[in-house]
Amino acid sequence: GFAKVDHNRKVRQGFPEIIFGEGKTAAQIISIMDAIKSRGDDVLATRVAKEKAEEILKYQPDFIYNETANILYWKKDMQPNMGDTGYIAIVCAGTSDLRVAEEAAVTAEFLGSDVRRFYDVGVAGIHRLLDNVEAIRDATVSVVVAGMEGALPSVVGGLVSRPVIAVPTSIGYGANFQGLSALLAMLNSCASGVSVVNIDNGFGGAYNAVMIDRMARSAREED
Amino acid sequence: GFAKVDHNRKVRQGFPEIIFGEGKTAAQIISIMDAIKSRGDDVLATRVAKEKAEEILKYQPDFIYNETANILYWKKDMQPNMGDTGYIAIVCAGTSDLRVAEEAAVTAEFLGSDVRRFYDVGVAGIHRLLDNVEAIRDATVSVVVAGMEGALPSVVGGLVSRPVIAVPTSIGYGANFQGLSALLAMLNSCASGVSVVNIDNGFGGAYNAVMIDRMARSAREED
Amino acid sequence: GFAKVDHNRKVRQGFPEIIFGEGKTAAQIISIMDAIKSRGDDVLATRVAKEKAEEILKYQPDFIYNETANILYWKKDMQPNMGDTGYIAIVCAGTSDLRVAEEAAVTAEFLGSDVRRFYDVGVAGIHRLLDNVEAIRDATVSVVVAGMEGALPSVVGGLVSRPVIAVPTSIGYGANFQGLSALLAMLNSCASGVSVVNIDNGFGGAYNAVMIDRMARSAREED
Amino acid sequence: GFAKVDHNRKVRQGFPEIIFGEGKTAAQIISIMDAIKSRGDDVLATRVAKEKAEEILKYQPDFIYNETANILYWKKDMQPNMGDTGYIAIVCAGTSDLRVAEEAAVTAEFLGSDVRRFYDVGVAGIHRLLDNVEAIRDATVSVVVAGMEGALPSVVGGLVSRPVIAVPTSIGYGANFQGLSALLAMLNSCASGVSVVNIDNGFGGAYNAVMIDRMARSAREED
Amino acid sequence: GFAKVDHNRKVRQGFPEIIFGEGKTAAQIISIMDAIKSRGDDVLATRVAKEKAEEILKYQPDFIYNETANILYWKKDMQPNMGDTGYIAIVCAGTSDLRVAEEAAVTAEFLGSDVRRFYDVGVAGIHRLLDNVEAIRDATVSVVVAGMEGALPSVVGGLVSRPVIAVPTSIGYGANFQGLSALLAMLNSCASGVSVVNIDNGFGGAYNAVMIDRMARSAREED
Amino acid sequence: GFAKVDHNRKVRQGFPEIIFGEGKTAAQIISIMDAIKSRGDDVLATRVAKEKAEEILKYQPDFIYNETANILYWKKDMQPNMGDTGYIAIVCAGTSDLRVAEEAAVTAEFLGSDVRRFYDVGVAGIHRLLDNVEAIRDATVSVVVAGMEGALPSVVGGLVSRPVIAVPTSIGYGANFQGLSALLAMLNSCASGVSVVNIDNGFGGAYNAVMIDRMARSAREED
Amino acid sequence: GFAKVDHNRKVRQGFPEIIFGEGKTAAQIISIMDAIKSRGDDVLATRVAKEKAEEILKYQPDFIYNETANILYWKKDMQPNMGDTGYIAIVCAGTSDLRVAEEAAVTAEFLGSDVRRFYDVGVAGIHRLLDNVEAIRDATVSVVVAGMEGALPSVVGGLVSRPVIAVPTSIGYGANFQGLSALLAMLNSCASGVSVVNIDNGFGGAYNAVMIDRMARSAREED
Amino acid sequence: GFAKVDHNRKVRQGFPEIIFGEGKTAAQIISIMDAIKSRGDDVLATRVAKEKAEEILKYQPDFIYNETANILYWKKDMQPNMGDTGYIAIVCAGTSDLRVAEEAAVTAEFLGSDVRRFYDVGVAGIHRLLDNVEAIRDATVSVVVAGMEGALPSVVGGLVSRPVIAVPTSIGYGANFQGLSALLAMLNSCASGVSVVNIDNGFGGAYNAVMIDRMARSAREED
Ligand SMILES: Nc1ncnc2c1ncn2[C@@H]1O[C@H](COP(=O)(O)O)[C@@H](O)[C@H]1O
Ligand SMILES: Nc1ncnc2c1ncn2[C@@H]1O[C@H](COP(=O)(O)O)[C@@H](O)[C@H]1O
Ligand SMILES: Nc1ncnc2c1ncn2[C@@H]1O[C@H](COP(=O)(O)O)[C@@H](O)[C@H]1O
Ligand SMILES: Nc1ncnc2c1ncn2[C@@H]1O[C@H](COP(=O)(O)O)[C@@H](O)[C@H]1O
Ligand SMILES: [Mg+2]
Ligand SMILES: [Mg+2]
Ligand SMILES: [Mg+2]
Ligand SMILES: [Mg+2]
Ligand SMILES: [Mg+2]
Ligand SMILES: [Mg+2]
Ligand SMILES: [Mg+2]
Ligand SMILES: [Mg+2]
Repeated sequence: GFAKVDHNRKVRQGFPEIIFGEGKTAAQIISIMDAIKSRGDDVLATRVAKEKAEEILKYQPDFIYNETANILYWKKDMQPNMGDTGYIAIVCAGTSDLRVAEEAAVTAEFLGSDVRRFYDVGVAGIHRLLDNVEAIRDATVSVVVAGMEGALPSVVGGLVSRPVIAVPTSIGYGANFQGLSALLAMLNSCASGVSVVNIDNGFGGAYNAVMIDRMARSAREED
Repeated sequence: GFAKVDHNRKVRQGFPEIIFGEGKTAAQIISIMDAIKSRGDDVLATRVAKEKAEEILKYQPDFIYNETANILYWKKDMQPNMGDTGYIAIVCAGTSDLRVAEEAAVTAEFLGSDVRRFYDVGVAGIHRLLDNVEAIRDATVSVVVAGMEGALPSVVGGLVSRPVIAVPTSIGYGANFQGLSALLAMLNSCASGVSVVNIDNGFGGAYNAVMIDRMARSAREED
Repeated sequence: GFAKVDHNRKVRQGFPEIIFGEGKTAAQIISIMDAIKSRGDDVLATRVAKEKAEEILKYQPDFIYNETANILYWKKDMQPNMGDTGYIAIVCAGTSDLRVAEEAAVTAEFLGSDVRRFYDVGVAGIHRLLDNVEAIRDATVSVVVAGMEGALPSVVGGLVSRPVIAVPTSIGYGANFQGLSALLAMLNSCASGVSVVNIDNGFGGAYNAVMIDRMARSAREED
Repeated sequence: GFAKVDHNRKVRQGFPEIIFGEGKTAAQIISIMDAIKSRGDDVLATRVAKEKAEEILKYQPDFIYNETANILYWKKDMQPNMGDTGYIAIVCAGTSDLRVAEEAAVTAEFLGSDVRRFYDVGVAGIHRLLDNVEAIRDATVSVVVAGMEGALPSVVGGLVSRPVIAVPTSIGYGANFQGLSALLAMLNSCASGVSVVNIDNGFGGAYNAVMIDRMARSAREED
Repeated sequence: GFAKVDHNRKVRQGFPEIIFGEGKTAAQIISIMDAIKSRGDDVLATRVAKEKAEEILKYQPDFIYNETANILYWKKDMQPNMGDTGYIAIVCAGTSDLRVAEEAAVTAEFLGSDVRRFYDVGVAGIHRLLDNVEAIRDATVSVVVAGMEGALPSVVGGLVSRPVIAVPTSIGYGANFQGLSALLAMLNSCASGVSVVNIDNGFGGAYNAVMIDRMARSAREED
Repeated sequence: GFAKVDHNRKVRQGFPEIIFGEGKTAAQIISIMDAIKSRGDDVLATRVAKEKAEEILKYQPDFIYNETANILYWKKDMQPNMGDTGYIAIVCAGTSDLRVAEEAAVTAEFLGSDVRRFYDVGVAGIHRLLDNVEAIRDATVSVVVAGMEGALPSVVGGLVSRPVIAVPTSIGYGANFQGLSALLAMLNSCASGVSVVNIDNGFGGAYNAVMIDRMARSAREED
Repeated sequence: GFAKVDHNRKVRQGFPEIIFGEGKTAAQIISIMDAIKSRGDDVLATRVAKEKAEEILKYQPDFIYNETANILYWKKDMQPNMGDTGYIAIVCAGTSDLRVAEEAAVTAEFLGSDVRRFYDVGVAGIHRLLDNVEAIRDATVSVVVAGMEGALPSVVGGLVSRPVIAVPTSIGYGANFQGLSALLAMLNSCASGVSVVNIDNGFGGAYNAVMIDRMARSAREED
Repeated sequence: GFAKVDHNRKVRQGFPEIIFGEGKTAAQIISIMDAIKSRGDDVLATRVAKEKAEEILKYQPDFIYNETANILYWKKDMQPNMGDTGYIAIVCAGTSDLRVAEEAAVTAEFLGSDVRRFYDVGVAGIHRLLDNVEAIRDATVSVVVAGMEGALPSVVGGLVSRPVIAVPTSIGYGANFQGLSALLAMLNSCASGVSVVNIDNGFGGAYNAVMIDRMARSAREED
């Protein structure tokens, strides 16, 4: 085949292969996802546009497509995390950041974490964030998604004492430079405990968060 | 002489000439300031480093030097704005932004406005800002000074209903790129009512604010 | 719903919610504008392309669409500002900057200010500007819109003694870098009293100007 | 005083205040550290150059200075983490990255984590990294420090299944652009589980890692 | 005609003219290729999109089109390099880099070198590269193609003792900036023996490699 | 010797060799200037700092040093251009641009043109420029020197009908980026007839202007 | 109307108004060109794409369209410059630069200069340029158009003793950054006598050249 | 010790360890060089400033220091390459590029190649290069060093049929951006057969060239 599926990775890293759908044809996505699914493994593809997803779903009607997140996946067994109170907070600034926030949320759920969404709580109306501060503080880790000036992770980072994964988005125009303004802001956050992933990389934010959440939850379960 | 002092400007704009001290020798600053002072006009120079100021003060002991602000000035008549409740809020994020904030504050006072300082109220400890929100809301205009991620003007802009002049500073390192991160963040502010001046331009922030404050105060005085 | 409409903002800021139309579907814009209108509040959406506007107008024929400005709005009560001589000057360099200048003008009128337009008065034919200088000087505040080398705000700022809000546009090509040249020029203006908003942000320029104009007009009215 | 020490932070975040020493005078650092120490709290200052540190140590001989890390601190109680096998791996590419790696290592130890150092294991001699892979895999979290092409976090991220905090350094010249090349490389890592902090921000890398390590260790201790 | 075909070049450089197909119409490509072919010379065009190629093939069915590489060529005489063990290694990181890697591979074969492909051996799964290290070491020269963080040439350069030509690709998003991250990484490689060509310039990588391979092979043949 | 003096150039170009003094030692400058002078040719060195010049003048007291321009030269025969009314206008925005303007003026005079200086006529006080417009219009060519927002060449270019050579300077701070703002503004000038040389390249501006002035003057002389 | 046609310009500058066609509709172009033509003035529009031109030509069949140059014009009187040997050299590097070179050539001819074209003489085959060096030296001024590495103006500038106007083009890919590489190269030319206009600004190159050529030709005619 | 000397490298790559002297103290350089020398291996350090070298030479008088190249080395056995006609051409544009060119030349000689220097043959006086073209063509490989517009490798690349390693230098000012202009020009070279190393990386250019020269020379020796 054209791609060496990294079978060894699940063993090495404890996570299934995740496919970057952009730039791949429907046929390529089907072929890779099938290969993984036929091994009995869960599989998820990000950045699958609606039209492409619909084409794929014709051949694979048991795949699930989340339109906001542009994510297509197949999972053996989708039951919720029972008897466990740990969760990841997905926080986002504005409705335009939704696609990226949902990419993070759906990925995190797929990888086995519980998620609570705190959307449209941007810094220009700070009371919306403050109203939710207790619930965000209780999360094991927060994924904070923001475009434009990218200020939200600094404010959240100052309010919580657990890790914040900041995801800049390309939302904005002009001196935004496709997300550069938010990216730089997040890298320069004056709050401690904030680390950053690539612009629009909701998937990456979730992946980091799940790694942390797993460790945190095993800790809590023991309590 | 080497410089055409723009005598016409005070008439045209209602403000005295202000000297940009950087790159000028002590002798040049003395000569320009003297020329203006000898006309009976007030005069102020920004960005005068301590050593240079000390040299100048030997010749002109009646000039006043503010070390934090790096400002040297002479003013006929320094009495406060009596019987008037309007003021400009100078808000700044961290102690490192002090030089720029004070450049703004001293300039604004020199130009005839009252000033209230709200320093070290950066977004990573948002309660410090929230504690001062009423007093900032009451200002006719706010000058908000911040480096690093430059998030403060967005938060202030969302809390007040009067203009915010944002002044990015070059405070930071690495992906700060000498103030670019704060500048871009402020230009992309999702709060309405925020406009921006050059990096480290405390003077410019103050000048804009005084223009607005004057109009606002005449309004209030009439009430 | 997908968006938390910030109902509290009008109270906090004294201005109605304004919708950023770009990236929203016709259906989303209708739903938000309806929600606001049905509260009896005025509502305006910027960056609504012609086709989208036409689709919306089918459902909401009482909305008004300004094609040059790409603005769609609904206002209870559009009467002019009577018995008041204050106005905002909207100054622009070339015909290519019209879209942004009109975004500013229509927004300012919607928010309740009077506006006077001074268009196509760019610096390469300086007499066109000089012919209008008295009327621009009399404005409470100027919004100066320019692309390419972005020189106009410096010239205007040197001629007037009230605030200038500079709006860089993305008009140009090559070393213009989508408005970067105009943006940098404006941030580096050697005229005092110039502050800057994001590239193509006519809305933001207007919003700042209206805040100032309101204060200035109440002052004048008292005279 | 000139700075509002954020006393509330320790409560809010569970970590002591850490001082950014750059741009502060010896006198300022002494005054802040004393204020904190006199409350009985531990205190650490980063980016304290040798000369400044020596000046401070004259007044405060019980402070400890780490020259490679440029860190000055005081800690009530420095005993090691007993009866616990969790640790943070600090991995760095070359000897030039040592200052940043040690800033991370000393900060992490100060904040209460155990640290294991894997230095000079850059990708141009990959066997040096492979020789240490088991020990790095066993860490709860890795802080991976690299300048120049910044490739190391991608390789480490592909070998381990726990979080990697990548710290780009400004080591390099020419097209390195003061660390931009390493920063961009890390943000674009094709390995999952990598998040990034600012250029040369060893402190930030450590702070994030300690947050994670704490959660992981409580989990393990329960086993 | 519209182009001066550089007939002198083959004599000067020992290589046939190669056409840059992008931005040329099918008619222009046919006319240039025909002119060269009719002299009896081999001819190749890079960056010929599928639709354009199909149009050309209608008129010139004896041209050969490689779809992955976007290359169209005509060669008198395609026999392999017999009795010679030298080859160029074309190494690439991910399946998305295939277009560029194949542009390099097909160009090199056209110019008379043997090629061995090592695809999908990116650094995030380093074992895939290590499995192939002997064969890559035996190549006379390696062309290493990678996008995103561009780390692969550094790892390969550290493992082999012959020249590495690094080809950054524009694969990635966000802080990738159309290949800038990979380009900067490769220019800053801490491995010796790595030189770099333009982003996505598979052709250029191959051309350099063939020049080297020719010299190396004549050397070996003599042994 | 260490440098191949391009003896052929004067023949080829009709101008003497001009030395770039920056980065050369006093000894190197003396040795090159002597070599040229001893051929009987005029010689000029730019960017010679005061200390270096003083050192050189000890050995070559007949050299002339212009401190503002940082230029050192020797000329056989310095008589003015008699019986000829053509001249180059050197126009500059502010006193900070003086060094570059004088580099242009002294170079042009050295190369045999008459020069008229119009200094400190920046756009923020446009009347200063307008007062001089007739004399600038009469020049054969203008060299327009400006830093910060670099607006002056656009205004001059719109007022005159002969060529304008724009010289951006690095004067400014913050978002000036060492002259980038002025450079971009000048390249994007909406006035026709403006071409641009490198930042701070007063020499280059003069050299271009003298080439043009020579042609224009021979034309006039014939009238 | 929507545009203030700068009628005064022809008087001020001796050149007709030239229209920037990009971003204007066919209707707008017709209306402006008609207004000028109906005054009896010549008129030219640059950057008119083929489809738009065809639409315009339906209404104005006496306009002339040059497809390569994307230029549309009307000229009373197109006779050649008789009895005069002066001309402008338009030199270009590759066939891809043709559009810009022809924009320059057609503009220069329209403005009344004679033009000689030297196309496809890029530096990678330097003999092609050297073969034409005498004819280029004899031009009153050269417009040198090049993309990619933009080296041609430096080589030409070193060979001629009259002004070179360098026009960078956006031809290239990858690290070309839409013409930035050629622009920077030209601004840094080590040849004296080179000035630069905006990327792809063939019009601007021609306009500057014609200004110079006019002065030079009047000089020669007198001889 | 603080550095893991990569003993395995010589075996792996056939070249001795080379030390990057910048940022290392004299003591560190002595200690590393001694370690290698005491194994009987040759050793070289680049970027050793004169003062540092003099300090080191006091302890190690048998080391050799080349001041122009800023290189310090020790070699068992410095005899020339007898009975072999292959050599590397080191070509450089101007005298300012000498430091980098000599870094390349001395490194190449140290690594066992013969070198011929072609200095001060920049493109603004193309005859200087053309005079040397035969000798450059005969080299096995050329290292072409240039700052400013970086045009030289394109011209050389078009004249020779063997590989060109281009080394951009940071020589220049203003829009040079510390070597960016030369770097971009070289990456965009329209000549085939040019690959690029980092700005000012004379060492890297030499290293690549020696790898190629070795293969070429063994070929020739066999002839
Ligand atoms: N053209 C515009 N440019 C920048 N901000 C805008 C613009 N139009 C509206 N806004 C702001 O965007 C906010 C609404 O964003 P949204 O919730 O995405 O519709 C409003 O409150 C305005 O402050
Ligand atoms: N090296 C460092 N890099 C980034 N942030 C730091 C560093 N050292 C300390 N800090 C942060 O800077 C804050 C203190 O800043 P300051 O009040 O200026 O001393 C601390 O709370 C830390 O979060
Ligand atoms: N993909 C490519 N990238 C860079 N240069 C190329 C490419 N393909 C061909 N070339 C070069 O472009 C030249 C031909 O350009 P052109 O005359 O525009 O077809 C050839 O001589 C090659 O050196
Ligand atoms: N200030 C300057 N800026 C740009 N180029 C200059 C300057 N001064 C001299 N030059 C050019 O530099 C060349 C000499 O460089 P060099 O051989 O290094 O002295 C001269 O021929 C001039 O063309
Ligand atoms: Mg926190
Ligand atoms: Mg507000
Ligand atoms: Mg003003
Ligand atoms: Mg991993
Ligand atoms: Mg190697
Ligand atoms: Mg003009
Ligand atoms: Mg010349
Ligand atoms: Mg070649």
